[in-house]
Amino acid sequence: MALTGFRDFYPDDCAFRNAIFAKWRDVAHRYGFVEYDGPPLEPLDLFTKKSGQEIVTQLYNFKDKGDRDVALRPEMTPTLARLVTARHRDFKKPLKWFSIPQVYRYERPQKGRGREHYQFNCDIIGEAGLEADIELIALVIDTLRAFGLVEKDFVVRLSDRQFWTDFMNAKSVPEDQRYAFIQAIDKSEREPREKTAEKLGPLAAEVFAILDDAASAKSERLDTVEAGLKYRGLQDYVKRDYTVVRGLAYYTGVVFEVFDRSGESRAIAGGGRYDTLLKNLGDVDLPALGFGMGDMVLGDLLKEKKWSPKDLMTLKAYFVVADEAFRPQAMALAQELRYFFSVEYPFSPSKVGKQFQTAEERGCDVAIVIDQQINEGVVEVKVLATREQSKVKTGVDLMENLSKLELNKHHREAGLPEA
Amino acid sequence: MALTGFRDFYPDDCAFRNAIFAKWRDVAHRYGFVEYDGPPLEPLDLFTKKSGQEIVTQLYNFKDKGDRDVALRPEMTPTLARLVTARHRDFKKPLKWFSIPQVYRYERPQKGRGREHYQFNCDIIGEAGLEADIELIALVIDTLRAFGLVEKDFVVRLSDRQFWTDFMNAKSVPEDQRYAFIQAIDKSEREPREKTAEKLGPLAAEVFAILDDAASAKSERLDTVEAGLKYRGLQDYVKRDYTVVRGLAYYTGVVFEVFDRSGESRAIAGGGRYDTLLKNLGDVDLPALGFGMGDMVLGDLLKEKKWSPKDLMTLKAYFVVADEAFRPQAMALAQELRYFFSVEYPFSPSKVGKQFQTAEERGCDVAIVIDQQINEGVVEVKVLATREQSKVKTGVDLMENLSKLELNKHHREAGLPEA
Repeated sequence: MALTGFRDFYPDDCAFRNAIFAKWRDVAHRYGFVEYDGPPLEPLDLFTKKSGQEIVTQLYNFKDKGDRDVALRPEMTPTLARLVTARHRDFKKPLKWFSIPQVYRYERPQKGRGREHYQFNCDIIGEAGLEADIELIALVIDTLRAFGLVEKDFVVRLSDRQFWTDFMNAKSVPEDQRYAFIQAIDKSEREPREKTAEKLGPLAAEVFAILDDAASAKSERLDTVEAGLKYRGLQDYVKRDYTVVRGLAYYTGVVFEVFDRSGESRAIAGGGRYDTLLKNLGDVDLPALGFGMGDMVLGDLLKEKKWSPKDLMTLKAYFVVADEAFRPQAMALAQELRYFFSVEYPFSPSKVGKQFQTAEERGCDVAIVIDQQINEGVVEVKVLATREQSKVKTGVDLMENLSKLELNKHHREAGLPEA
Repeated sequence: MALTGFRDFYPDDCAFRNAIFAKWRDVAHRYGFVEYDGPPLEPLDLFTKKSGQEIVTQLYNFKDKGDRDVALRPEMTPTLARLVTARHRDFKKPLKWFSIPQVYRYERPQKGRGREHYQFNCDIIGEAGLEADIELIALVIDTLRAFGLVEKDFVVRLSDRQFWTDFMNAKSVPEDQRYAFIQAIDKSEREPREKTAEKLGPLAAEVFAILDDAASAKSERLDTVEAGLKYRGLQDYVKRDYTVVRGLAYYTGVVFEVFDRSGESRAIAGGGRYDTLLKNLGDVDLPALGFGMGDMVLGDLLKEKKWSPKDLMTLKAYFVVADEAFRPQAMALAQELRYFFSVEYPFSPSKVGKQFQTAEERGCDVAIVIDQQINEGVVEVKVLATREQSKVKTGVDLMENLSKLELNKHHREAGLPEA
């Protein structure tokens, strides 16, 4: 058994996981993001420096055999900050970087949350302007759209940390009460109103008015972001919602959380602007923003939607060795075809009917029958889905025949007419 | 700084790593292998059960917050054995499974070997016949050929553990001396002959005769394997060499190691048949064989050979926003083009010349100039490599124009004529 909270990926699970990764990469590339990665194991203080000692209770941390305090990464941002601050002069700003790290937390496993998950992290570093915020939010929307999810499936709840900072300034909330103020807003959705009101004191009515009617509260930043998303036709995916404050310490500007619109309202992704973090962690003053999206909640949602990855793989052929005497020739042919196609064959002699059955079980597209005809340069090719069978000359003819079958397979998957 | 022996993957490094992974996956798929994965963190005893307590000195092991003894995986085989034995009835034999785990050992880092690396693991489970051994060796050869490596670059040294077992039986080597006997052969290459002779005692002359002239020693298994590889035209990649015994405990039949033929003779990959391991570890009696190939030695070799991954990515366009007034229209166009292509643009206003420069720096293929013409549905498209420039209607015309540029880019990379 795997450790509690850790997943095994049997072939079907692994294919599903990899299909999610492939979509993530594809969308990131289309937005001009490049991939980076770091070690899963890092010095412990990389994480405590950002999140304080409290984080240690949630970490897989230990002393290595060289007596170093180390920890499995609970998130990617500290590693990103380490990489960027160490070599920021080598890269033109803005950086648009993404990664798909597996991250680890020692927490009680629950639905949609294990002790590990993979997290799609996209960050833009070195750009203070709101165009970057718009780009990042468009990216998170298009990422979900790439899986076939639409407006009715999810919503991006958009907020502005700076709005609340300005509000607290205007109302002269004392420094030492600000953390509690933000925390009260953060929890307001999950708590009875009286409890939140108690925490907010005399400001309660004004705050509730803002939370209940986001349109009543001005934020030029959010106006700009909403306009930018509208130019892209993405306005129906977002909703202004000032309850979103995203954690407590490090966000500085526009923040957002993506929720699914089904009853469960699970958080699919979240992020925002954190302009002071790189300065605090690495003494490099670069504005930054980013989001994270885990594979578990998304995967659950996609399974509910019956999403399944398209089979755009190479054509799969199975050699039915009908006459064992010609196995050597079959192997030469396999070697040739494998430059372009997937080829399998039985390792030991078995009945022809059983071999056809195996071909189907293994999800092959065609069976290629090997018998004495191969000496005259001919094989029977049977398309398993249609049962069509034809004699084909080996060499160029066979290559062309299989290439056409492969093209048509991809066309079918993509909903295009046959070639 | 990353921990000693751990690698950061800045974008260029990450692209190189991912290109290796992509080739590994591609070849595995063409051989009909399917991917699986398991957790990087496993119960400690999963590893000690296979390798004994000695392994612990090399492990990243610790007690988790639930007081479990856990370890970062030092290799994939125990996890594979765990997965297969738990659910072997759910899968038709033979299983052809591969994985690309990152694995961890606390060892002194040296060239080609850190404290982590990625390892391409391919295993065939449930097939006792030698056809499986041939298939696996053909796969390891084709994996390296996929990177452009040829006969003069590497050699598969082929051996047979059973040959030595039979030899020891014939010579009545007592059970308690067999481990030392095999170990002496294993080390014979790296030790002065006198030292090996001392260890082998009266059998020394006979053993040396075999090591010096592999052809003199009969192994029907190796004859069959060599014949099978010859059918596939792969005979020049292998060399029989009985010094290869591959570790000491668990291999049972044909074994092999792949070395590069340059002066350094680094081990690129190794594997063989381990028919008793699943029975010993999981009490499931299934024959098995596999190999592992690390990314570090291979990566070093590929860098020496100046191998670089082909750029078969989507076409990359850069929007040169020549007139800021039309940024909204540009964003609508970006949104449309990003269904198929990679699109970047400047987040803030800057001079046209500087934007063209950025387009080149970011490795874009085309620049699309946005000015007042976009209101009439026209943009200038400039191919950066050739400086060719043309006015193109947005919509279908632009899509077709860019698609053709993308196709030609891929054709050029693949050495095909332009479309």
